[in-house]
Amino acid sequence: MKLSQIGELTLLEQIRKRFEKRSPDIVIGIGDDAALLKPFKKNILVTTDMMVEGVHFNMDFITPYQLGFKLVSVNVSDIYAMGGIPRFLLLGIAMNKNTAKETFDRFFDGVHEAMKHYGLSLVGGDISSASKGMSLSATLIGYAEKCLKRSGAKKGDRIYVTGNLGDSACGLELLKKIKRLIPIEISKEQRAKSKELRIKMLPKGLTWEDVEPLLTRHLMPKARDPRRFIRYATSMIDISDGLLIDLSRLCDESKVGARIYTKNIPVSSELKKAASCLGISPIRLALSGGEDYELLFTAPRDKRVKAIYIGDITESERVIIDTSGKKKTFSVEGYQHFGIQR
Amino acid sequence: MKLSQIGELTLLEQIRKRFEKRSPDIVIGIGDDAALLKPFKKNILVTTDMMVEGVHFNMDFITPYQLGFKLVSVNVSDIYAMGGIPRFLLLGIAMNKNTAKETFDRFFDGVHEAMKHYGLSLVGGDISSASKGMSLSATLIGYAEKCLKRSGAKKGDRIYVTGNLGDSACGLELLKKIKRLIPIEISKEQRAKSKELRIKMLPKGLTWEDVEPLLTRHLMPKARDPRRFIRYATSMIDISDGLLIDLSRLCDESKVGARIYTKNIPVSSELKKAASCLGISPIRLALSGGEDYELLFTAPRDKRVKAIYIGDITESERVIIDTSGKKKTFSVEGYQHFGIQR
Repeated sequence: MKLSQIGELTLLEQIRKRFEKRSPDIVIGIGDDAALLKPFKKNILVTTDMMVEGVHFNMDFITPYQLGFKLVSVNVSDIYAMGGIPRFLLLGIAMNKNTAKETFDRFFDGVHEAMKHYGLSLVGGDISSASKGMSLSATLIGYAEKCLKRSGAKKGDRIYVTGNLGDSACGLELLKKIKRLIPIEISKEQRAKSKELRIKMLPKGLTWEDVEPLLTRHLMPKARDPRRFIRYATSMIDISDGLLIDLSRLCDESKVGARIYTKNIPVSSELKKAASCLGISPIRLALSGGEDYELLFTAPRDKRVKAIYIGDITESERVIIDTSGKKKTFSVEGYQHFGIQR
Repeated sequence: MKLSQIGELTLLEQIRKRFEKRSPDIVIGIGDDAALLKPFKKNILVTTDMMVEGVHFNMDFITPYQLGFKLVSVNVSDIYAMGGIPRFLLLGIAMNKNTAKETFDRFFDGVHEAMKHYGLSLVGGDISSASKGMSLSATLIGYAEKCLKRSGAKKGDRIYVTGNLGDSACGLELLKKIKRLIPIEISKEQRAKSKELRIKMLPKGLTWEDVEPLLTRHLMPKARDPRRFIRYATSMIDISDGLLIDLSRLCDESKVGARIYTKNIPVSSELKKAASCLGISPIRLALSGGEDYELLFTAPRDKRVKAIYIGDITESERVIIDTSGKKKTFSVEGYQHFGIQR
């Protein structure tokens, strides 16, 4: 069934029934002109992100379920990157009227799964038709007690990340080779039955065990909750566009430099293996690949922080020390919309 | 100059410099992962709306300035419709990389003009490239003391609107005939000099004085502040999709009916004249035309309300009484995305 056979009002009613939930901090939820929220005297964090078909995603590579999950994660990551607790979600969806109802439903299944994972409530949104590609927007509101900015890093602070870098970018490279949808959201058993997903579609030398973590990181990233180290952090940002571009932003805002060590950059064994099969440098993916949604933060060097130490904040020089000890200046390398740099 | 010659980071920096403003209720504004807001212990209203090229607007008919202004107004109208005071704006913009920088700048001029008009602060957003048409999203956060829902109308309440209906829909019909951009945002004197805007492009029998209010209502609508009557109102909605569809929504939520009188529906003299020249029924435009952004509300009949009385809330029947006293049942007629009904 197509969306044009159902209509906006019925779709809205279905969403409302599914997501409507009373909670002491939601006075009015879905279904009126705006949502009324009662933030318990706390400060409010708010972020918005768009995802555009043909720019941020390609429906030949990502399932609607994965897309819904990812849209939510990307926004949660922004709230976590400020040290906040995500809480209220608003969605904007523009889809072609010939879109299958199945696509719409699976998209919301993915949204729902992510909402449960992060403890969110959907409080509003907008549904529209699109004449061409799909456009999605999400706005996320969260609470903040201690709030962490991009500025705040001090000379001498250590630089940390919360996990492996480059996996998502490598997952994208793999998808470009595999050239089909990978429904990682269904069970391994179900997938094993699918003739469509035979091992032969993988680049030579790689198994599903090798590629699965990389594909998952790209298709259904999970945002990192900073609560275990937040009390020590002096500045923070999430790695959405790539380590070097996001570290540059943090340095710009903090008016400092940074020295990072190639040998300290966490790279998964799966990334090393897959990158080698693909003929790409793993460290290049780890430094410049986007969409890992790991957190990048700084903390004073005398604090014991449960995260991966990758370098130090300097007065102004911005350098990478490679494994042979050679120093190389870094500039912003990563994804920029409108495509000046890459 | 094209956006691709400037790049996202420079564009963001320009926006940040222009709109950054310290205010006691904004702890962190543009430029970090999320904005941090301090809502003075008040309740929070939040709404989001998308505008998609080819669906909500056509760049052959609306200037970037008008589009920016309208995007803000549409969202302000939702906050006003809840009885709130709009305050914080977030924008999502996806534009093709070959878009002229001039288009981007004029769009923000229109946004800025609207922000000044409504007293808003821009606190965040997202800029992205689009492979095809332009997509815009706005999220608006406001404060609420007394909050007015769509539910709340009681049998016997009177139904009011805040101004003329149908003007915006008629403006759109005119634009379809005129088939060009009308820069109503520039002064009459400037426009008088433009050879492009000669009177001969207007449908026969109409002057610029006739059409200007209609075009303005469509291209640069202003949302209605409900403060002068809010203390009496029992329910409220803004007329974005058309009187009948929005009144039906209010009735659905309030679980009541409505009786409205054709003779009471406020119709401008300009609409009457233009609709007659175009061969369209003015009352049909007033009942079913969208995007007027007037407020529709109910109040007890013993209250003196400064607005236009158009009918009464009934137990369940939903009827229009025409000028000859004939009763006709109304159902939802108006714009619905995915196009089941029109």
